[in-house]
Amino acid sequence: MTTLINLQDIYLPVRPDLGKLPGLIREILDTRNREILDVIDHFFSRNGKFLRPALVLLGGAAACSLRRKRADEREETALLHLAAATEIFHSATLIHDDIIDSAKIRRGIPTLNIKWGPQMAVLAGDFFHDRAMAEIFQYGTDRIIPLFLRTAGFICDGEVQELGKKNDLCLTEAEYLEIIHKKTASLLACSLKTGAYTCGMEEREASAIEDFGIHFGMAFQIVDDCLDFTGREHEFGKTLGSDVNEGVITLPVIELLVSSRREETVRILKGSDETKRFKALLELLKKEKAIEKAFDKACEFTRKAKASLEVLPECPARTSLEQLADYVLERNR
Amino acid sequence: MTTLINLQDIYLPVRPDLGKLPGLIREILDTRNREILDVIDHFFSRNGKFLRPALVLLGGAAACSLRRKRADEREETALLHLAAATEIFHSATLIHDDIIDSAKIRRGIPTLNIKWGPQMAVLAGDFFHDRAMAEIFQYGTDRIIPLFLRTAGFICDGEVQELGKKNDLCLTEAEYLEIIHKKTASLLACSLKTGAYTCGMEEREASAIEDFGIHFGMAFQIVDDCLDFTGREHEFGKTLGSDVNEGVITLPVIELLVSSRREETVRILKGSDETKRFKALLELLKKEKAIEKAFDKACEFTRKAKASLEVLPECPARTSLEQLADYVLERNR
Repeated sequence: MTTLINLQDIYLPVRPDLGKLPGLIREILDTRNREILDVIDHFFSRNGKFLRPALVLLGGAAACSLRRKRADEREETALLHLAAATEIFHSATLIHDDIIDSAKIRRGIPTLNIKWGPQMAVLAGDFFHDRAMAEIFQYGTDRIIPLFLRTAGFICDGEVQELGKKNDLCLTEAEYLEIIHKKTASLLACSLKTGAYTCGMEEREASAIEDFGIHFGMAFQIVDDCLDFTGREHEFGKTLGSDVNEGVITLPVIELLVSSRREETVRILKGSDETKRFKALLELLKKEKAIEKAFDKACEFTRKAKASLEVLPECPARTSLEQLADYVLERNR
Repeated sequence: MTTLINLQDIYLPVRPDLGKLPGLIREILDTRNREILDVIDHFFSRNGKFLRPALVLLGGAAACSLRRKRADEREETALLHLAAATEIFHSATLIHDDIIDSAKIRRGIPTLNIKWGPQMAVLAGDFFHDRAMAEIFQYGTDRIIPLFLRTAGFICDGEVQELGKKNDLCLTEAEYLEIIHKKTASLLACSLKTGAYTCGMEEREASAIEDFGIHFGMAFQIVDDCLDFTGREHEFGKTLGSDVNEGVITLPVIELLVSSRREETVRILKGSDETKRFKALLELLKKEKAIEKAFDKACEFTRKAKASLEVLPECPARTSLEQLADYVLERNR
């Protein structure tokens, strides 16, 4: 599967600003501690999708379109710093996530817990998180700072719930959706709203934009969970089957568990040979069209996401957001 | 050894406020997540020394003495919330520390990484840290919030340095002092200054009070490191010898490593039998009076700490701080 829509094209309206972020991220994370610098170099040696900072910038652009006035210098600076902070904040959660999931590979290279051990990974995550918060405090407003603090709480809460539900073969779709809402969708929505707030968007529109972020985020995570089965490792950048191996039950598996093949699914999941288990599961997912069913739900979320954008005028930022919603369904990394 | 000065007596001027903290800490940490609640119940089932919140309150009281005016209602509320936040913030670092040091026992009960596993401990630390920061953002001022953000950075930095120097038998005293300055003394100083700032203390006095906190904190950590050898487990609440077992080199061992018995010390430290190693080390520490030498340095720090208090008028808060400096040298937990 090739991705038809290119992420760089979608980012077009905010591309110049996005280009400044890698340098700014390094500046924000700068330290005299040589070991932390090594960690930073390693972590950012492969760029992620920069989805969250792009959403901050697009949120800002959307707010500017609404009021028909470009961002002033102060807003422009705040947008850049908040976009960088959002990526650092997200990176902190990834670093701790990788400890929790014993992940070995991220963006095609070893995770920090593999390269430096879980102890360094705990501290590096804390370091990233604190630097991000310092930046958010400096450039955020009284609407933005509490939003981030709430979001940090949601993410943590979602991750604790996910951890508690590992290997729970009775996990319901509603519980799964609640978990991904908290652990993934909340930060995507927060990113967009942060940009919108920075450029003075009113609450009614900001709330609609937040809805986009949530629905978009739900679709994003469902597709991510599908890619854990169907992706190509070198494109996806993570080890396939890692959710199943870690006991994390995701939507495709829930589709099997609520189908007539529940017993067979349980038997497979209880198998101890990782390779055999993954292969058997793939076959069953195919027979039951479980990936397709999960994918349909992701489509439904992208439809809702796009509908939320009706409050915005036709503008490049809105077009980008609509394209992002489509991209999510086609992405392979 | 019995502690001659009782901590509760030292806390006398702020005891009524301290009494409100356990309830307030629970309120701040309240969540609908049942698993996190279990963690909170477990962690706070044994109270710590409440040293940091006591310092916040004493800093506030000292500022009030200086201006000869009691704290008003707003200040009183801020002091309480910031004191509670400081204890939660500290708890977060303890939880992550215990993962990093593979600690089994804290305050006489199993650490979170033993009871729930390191994954839950990572998340619980994040949860505590975020709730503390949210409280600091809400009740802190423009002088207090950046102070906490800087302190969080120091602590992280100090811990990364400590981690990097594990098993490094060339660690110098200066490097050791830098590490404990960052990882321990900085938060004690920050606590005191937070209280002082809340009640409007001027920069000159606040800076002197910060000096007290730093020197007091240095003494506190040196004694802590001595107690890891000489303490009684049921009083100390931690497993003795855990620093050596984790490869953390502390001042008493540095005293041996710079003595004429360096080679013998290195041989002992490289031994693999934990019990034998600890016993041999204890004997050598005795012969070389290494604990006494480390202790002398702690005394020197408490002298400097007390000298910093000269900017304050004679008042109950100042007396408490002086007593705290003495307490540190006598404490056994």
